[in-house]
This record gives sequence, C-alpha cells and structure tokens, in this order.
Amino acid sequence: MRLTLVAALLMGACSLVAAQAADTAAEAVAGRILAAGLVRLGAYGMLEQLAARAPHRLSGSAGADSAVALARSFMLERGFSNVHLERVTVPRWVRGKVEKAYLHIRGGGKRMPLAVCALGGSIATPKGGVTADVVEVHSLDEVQKLGVTAAGKIIFYNRPMDPRLLNTFQAYEGAVDQRSRGAIEAAKVGAVAVLVRSMTLAIDSVPHTGAMGYVDGVKKIPAAAISTRDAGVLSALVARGARPRVTLMLSAKTLPDAVSANVVGEITGETSPRDVIVIGGHLDAWDKGTGANDDGAGCVQAIEALDILRTLGLKPKRTIRAVMFMNEENGLRGGRAYPLDSLRRAETHVAMLESDAGGFAPRGFYVDADSTVRARIARWIPALEHAGAGRFFPGRSAADISPMVAAGIPGFGLNPENQRYFDYHHSDRDTPEKVNPRELELGAVAEAILAWLVSEEGI
Amino acid sequence: MRLTLVAALLMGACSLVAAQAADTAAEAVAGRILAAGLVRLGAYGMLEQLAARAPHRLSGSAGADSAVALARSFMLERGFSNVHLERVTVPRWVRGKVEKAYLHIRGGGKRMPLAVCALGGSIATPKGGVTADVVEVHSLDEVQKLGVTAAGKIIFYNRPMDPRLLNTFQAYEGAVDQRSRGAIEAAKVGAVAVLVRSMTLAIDSVPHTGAMGYVDGVKKIPAAAISTRDAGVLSALVARGARPRVTLMLSAKTLPDAVSANVVGEITGETSPRDVIVIGGHLDAWDKGTGANDDGAGCVQAIEALDILRTLGLKPKRTIRAVMFMNEENGLRGGRAYPLDSLRRAETHVAMLESDAGGFAPRGFYVDADSTVRARIARWIPALEHAGAGRFFPGRSAADISPMVAAGIPGFGLNPENQRYFDYHHSDRDTPEKVNPRELELGAVAEAILAWLVSEEGI
Repeated sequence: MRLTLVAALLMGACSLVAAQAADTAAEAVAGRILAAGLVRLGAYGMLEQLAARAPHRLSGSAGADSAVALARSFMLERGFSNVHLERVTVPRWVRGKVEKAYLHIRGGGKRMPLAVCALGGSIATPKGGVTADVVEVHSLDEVQKLGVTAAGKIIFYNRPMDPRLLNTFQAYEGAVDQRSRGAIEAAKVGAVAVLVRSMTLAIDSVPHTGAMGYVDGVKKIPAAAISTRDAGVLSALVARGARPRVTLMLSAKTLPDAVSANVVGEITGETSPRDVIVIGGHLDAWDKGTGANDDGAGCVQAIEALDILRTLGLKPKRTIRAVMFMNEENGLRGGRAYPLDSLRRAETHVAMLESDAGGFAPRGFYVDADSTVRARIARWIPALEHAGAGRFFPGRSAADISPMVAAGIPGFGLNPENQRYFDYHHSDRDTPEKVNPRELELGAVAEAILAWLVSEEGI
Repeated sequence: MRLTLVAALLMGACSLVAAQAADTAAEAVAGRILAAGLVRLGAYGMLEQLAARAPHRLSGSAGADSAVALARSFMLERGFSNVHLERVTVPRWVRGKVEKAYLHIRGGGKRMPLAVCALGGSIATPKGGVTADVVEVHSLDEVQKLGVTAAGKIIFYNRPMDPRLLNTFQAYEGAVDQRSRGAIEAAKVGAVAVLVRSMTLAIDSVPHTGAMGYVDGVKKIPAAAISTRDAGVLSALVARGARPRVTLMLSAKTLPDAVSANVVGEITGETSPRDVIVIGGHLDAWDKGTGANDDGAGCVQAIEALDILRTLGLKPKRTIRAVMFMNEENGLRGGRAYPLDSLRRAETHVAMLESDAGGFAPRGFYVDADSTVRARIARWIPALEHAGAGRFFPGRSAADISPMVAAGIPGFGLNPENQRYFDYHHSDRDTPEKVNPRELELGAVAEAILAWLVSEEGI
C-alpha cells in the first residue's frame, strides 16, 4: 500500500499548483450536484426496487431479464435519450436446488451440516453426492506437491484473506486463486471435489459464491465455498490429527448460452454529441442475497448521476452515458461486447467511469490513465472533495470498462471505503439494508461531478 | 466545507516536502501497529463487553459504576501502569419509567401514540401529563416572535438537520440549538412543553435523546424528542390547517450529584515519564441503546491503542495514557476535573487525543493546534495513511479534552467517516452491531500510531 499512497499524495500535490488558479466554476457546479443528490437520495430508491423486483439476476436468468427491463424503464422514466439495449450473448449457469454438505462424525454415524454453496461454474456432484476424506491445503502449490496422495480426496483450500492488509481488495486478490483455479489444480492430482474457504474477512456461517473455472484437458470436479466458521471446524479437526470425512451434494449445471443485453441511455452532448463519457455498473449479480453492493449500487449510481445533472438543467457539451453491463460476474461478455457494437463506430470515447466496489462512502477514484491525464485531472480535486471523493489512486479502474481502458481510454473506478465490502460480497448478506442511502448517493454525486468536468473541460 | 477541505489539502501539501526526507522508521512502526491491530481486533471484544455489562451508563447511574469498574479491569488485565480512578462529582438525571405521548384525533376521541423520549435534563410533566395544542416552529427566533400566542401551547421544533451538508456534524450543529435551548425560549413565551425533532438525518420511528438546559429565572418546562417520522405526521397536520393536540407524559427527574470517576491507566515513558500523551474517550453514555458509537468506541480504542503498543514491546519515551472521561454527555465534569487533579502538578502534557465521533473507518484527525505544530506533524501523514487516517483537518478536537486544549495543549480528534453516525446517535439504535470490528480497530491503530510518533519525536 505504501507506494500507492505516496503516489496518491503526490498526485494530490500536483493538484495544488493547478488549484491555486481555483476552478470556481467547477466547485460551484459540484456544490449544486452535491446538494441536489443529498436531498433526492434517488439512488437508494432504485436499489430497493432492483433488489425487490430482480433479486437474483445472474446472466441468462429470468431475473436478469427483469433487471434489463427495469433498468431500461428507470432510464425511460427519467427522460434519458437514446435508451436502448445492446445485444450480448451470455453464459448461463444455474445453481439448481441442491447444495449441501455434511461432516461425518466418526463412530456414531452422526453427521454435522456444513454451510456451503456451489461456486459459479461448478458442475454437479453425482446424485448421491461425493463422499471423501478431506485434505486441507493453503495454496495451489501445496496441491501440486500432494501428488497421488490427493487421489480420491476432497481438497479443502483454507488460506484466509490476509487480515493485516488495510485494502480488503488486496486481501481478496491474494486469496481468490484458490476459488478461481482450485478445482483445476485439485483435479490434476486426482481429487474428486474441492471446498474453498469463503472469500471474506468475517468469521460467520455464510458461504460466499463467486466464479471458478475449468480448463480443457483437465477433469471437471465439483467446487463449493464453505463458510469461514465451518472452515474453522474442519481445520480444527485436521489440526487435532483427525481426517474429516465429508459428503458434498451439488446440482449445479451449465445450460446453453442465452441472449441478454447491456442497457444504455444518455444525456446527449450539446456541442459534441459523438464524444462520450460512460458511467457504468454491472447489472448481473450472483444468485445470493440481492447483489445490493455488487453491483446494484454501481448501476443505480450511474442512472442517478445522469438524473441529477438532468434535473439541475445542466446540459453537457459531450454525451454522458449510463451503461448497465451484463455478465461481469461470470464472463465479462457485456464489457467485451460494448466496444464491438456497431454503434461505437461513429463515437469517440473520452473517459470510462465505473462503480463496482460497493455502495459505501466514496474516497476517490482509481485512475487508469497516463501521466498527462493524471496531471490534468488533479485540478478537479477540490470539486470532487465536495463529495468526499477527491483522492486519485493509481490502479485498475473496473472490470466492465477494462476492454475500453485497455484500448487507451482513460478509466476511473470509484473507490469507496472498503472495510465492509467482503462481509457481504457474493453472499446472502448482500442486501440493501447494508447500504446507507447517503453513502450510496455520494458515489453517484462523485460520478456526476467527474463526468460533468470531463464533459465540459475535456481530459 | 470548502475552506476546510482546501486547508486540509494544503496541510497535506506541506507534508510532502517533509516526506521527501522519508520517515522510514515511523512508517515501519506504523506498519507493525496496523498488522497487529487487524489481526487482534481487540477493540471490538471490549466494546461487546461494555455494551453487555454496562449498557446504560449515564453519569451517576449504577451502569456508570459498572462501566468504571469494567474499564479499570480492562486496564489491569492488560498490565497497564498506574491504573487508578480520579474522583469526579457528576450530575445525576434519571429518565424514570414513563415517557410517552399521543396525538388526539379530533372527533372520535381516538389517539395515536407518538415516538418520544425525554431530553436529558428535562423535568417531569405533572402525573396526568401535559395536554395542549401544538405550534410548529423552525427556530428559536420564531418562538420569540410568537409572543403571547404561544401561551399554554406545546412548541414543536421541527427544523431538520440540513441534508445538503456532506459533514453530518455540521448539520447537527446547525440544528441542535432547538434541543439545547428550545425549552428556555418556549417557556419565555408561556409554552407548557416542547417537542423537538430528533437530531438525525434518517426518517424513522426512533427518538434521539441528548442534553437540554434551563436557565435561572425562566420557568422549567418538560422537553422531549420526537422521532422524525412522527415529526412528519405532526407537520403534515399543521400544513393541512389542523391544530394537532398532543398529550406528553414524562417522569424524568434530577437527583443530587453523585460521586464517580475518570478511569486512568498508562504505559509509563522510558525517558520522560512525566511528559504525557493522553488518548481519551468518554465512558458515560445516554441511557438509550448501549452507547456503542457514543462513545464506547472511543473508550475501547484508547485502551486497545495502548495494548497494541504494549504487546509489540514498543516502549515509548514519553508516557502514553488512556483516560476514560466521565460525564461528557450532560456536564463535562470529567473533562473539567482532569486538568485540576493534583496528580497533574507533576506532569507536562504534550498532546491530547480523543475519539468521540463513532467507531467508523478513520480518515484522519481534527487538529486544534498552532501552525508550528501543524507544520511539524505533517511529516507523519505517510505513517498515518497505513491506517487510512493521514488527513489533518483544522477544527475542534473533542469535548473532554477541550479544557486541556484551551490551555494550549495540542488537541487531536479522530475523524472517522460520519455519514451513519447520527442514524444511531443517542438512540436505541446505537449498539455494537452497527460497528464493524475492522473499522473500529483502525481508529485504535491510528491513535496508537499518532501517540507513538508524538512520544518518540515530540511535537
């Protein structure tokens, strides 16, 4: 973190030089956007509706169709221009009705239920489940070293997210290889299934799903997340020298690809309508909880940001566009389709913004752009500080916009306070009451200010 | 906010010059403190105990006595030095069993209950309650202008906290005169009671208590907070031209002063034991909820900060002291007693820190000190950024330490994210599950880092 933070401070310092020629116009607009947002609190109402009417909206599901329709109607009701769907073909994985596991208590024939859920993309177990001894590991390397001793076993990945890191996303990135590649490495040594410690810093009984993968040429084996509390139970047994025996039953499956859509609407630019600033979020969510923070928040913030500008009568020079991307969670097909849509040919993208890190109080933006852009945007810090979001952090912006950013468009990822994010992420706990209406709105306000400044002043 | 933020940025800028001669020793210690804190998460366990064993701990109550004993035992268990109580005489107000109100529905003889609670310091109503027509006002001035038309009425103060302000404490300060002085101004024009809109930005059914006052020569009349939702009900009736009639019943009373204590413990300085850095919180809390954020958080963070340093084997040059102040809420007697205690004569205080703004993720510190100090501390920004708390904001530090700060000692008030604070403040909602263990711990970590740097490097 240290280098990142020092760099962030230095970026802040650059701004001070520019800020001395104070951008009073920018600050005045920022103040109006903030006041309007905090009085409206419009993002939260949409979030509640999305959670109520499309709670489960994994790509290809009926819920995803409802979410597409709802997002479109949000945009139409607010008088956005050019509201339309852009076709995306998406993978379709379904959890099915059965996902359970239990620990066999040696001796008495008793069994203890374990809190598990299928990882996204997993195959089913045979109907009677997979029953095997559990081998605990802490890394993919350790599995390779097990070799043939792993044959017939359930591999239990139990390396926690590192609690010592301030940035919980960094802790997540340091542990998530177990989930994404764990089944592949386990299958290579003959394991029959994997259990993966849930990606959360909380110790509780809630399993957290998320994407996992297979590769050609390696046998597919079923994969489930286990709650951190039950991971502790298994680990304690192993530490005591027991060899826990577990039965895992999953009925997940992958169906043929489905047709879905990115949902697009905009405020068309007054002077340069073909110059576009995108504010994005992803409309799909895992089928646990209601995807309030991941990424209902980002979707409703994008719509709210445009609607604040619209209701204030602010007519941007360039087009400011809200895009609800489909299929971030298990394919990124929406993010990949967006640059390829034929509509793009007549457009020039100026900047890509996205919020996909939860609906918490914003602190600033991750900036994925060259030093010229970074120097230029530093003058906007005082304006963004109206929303408490005046810090620019170098780093990756967000997944859906990454194909455009990779093509050279400056990318901005909203960076909210992140301590609580993984308590909820991809689990039944990700529901709107975990989101504070003012904190959520401040993210929309920050995006509206930044998009407006890019539109009016260029980048 | 704008000037404050620009000033904060400028303070940050000063740091960059200093930071170029990077304080690597400071950063290394900060990293150790952070890692230790985030693994221990010791503050939250103490907070749960405090909430369970001394949930209601208003000054002079049995709960306050329990809290004193518990804080002392926390310090003794952790091997702090010179653990002792410093006597404080405190006011003793008790809510009593009755606090209710209802709205008379004209015509049918029916009545609708209103969510109210006595304001701290209020007298009781007569046994059968006070029944009167309600007059809605939005300021103390407006009451003065009512003149004799207010005689015999219940004055209903309904100016909301301004939602447009980013800083919720600023919104609170802009509304709280209605609570603190409302009964005085209403009594001057002959009103028989006051209802005050709860000091919160949330719209819900929970009344929020807090201190109110009387002055000599003006009749004392009963005062209660009303939930924001029921404030809306009354206001809608007034807007419709109705004259709502309300009965208010309170049984609150003020008993003779009681003897209580500040609780003190420390890590004695190795080279300058008489030079003291205080980390404070206030141990008393309103008798609603369990005072988790106000200010259980500040108390347990102070103890945790010392305990992290101790368990890391960091032996400070100067004494670092935890002080649990008594009676912040309705008298500040503990804060006033501290400088006067005879033990102070042999001591020199170097800096006063306090956390009294909730257990949320810290962003930095309010600094109440002269420009020399502010320039000197700027070099610690990179170290404090390890806890996400590297921003210095000019402003008042915290109430309990204000008498020492007024005497010229540099004051530091932890400044956490504040959007949610007034949702819980002084109400039944202020309970530990509103506090995230990592966010709480980060406040303790920030205080430990700052106290350590003051101790080792001077200020």
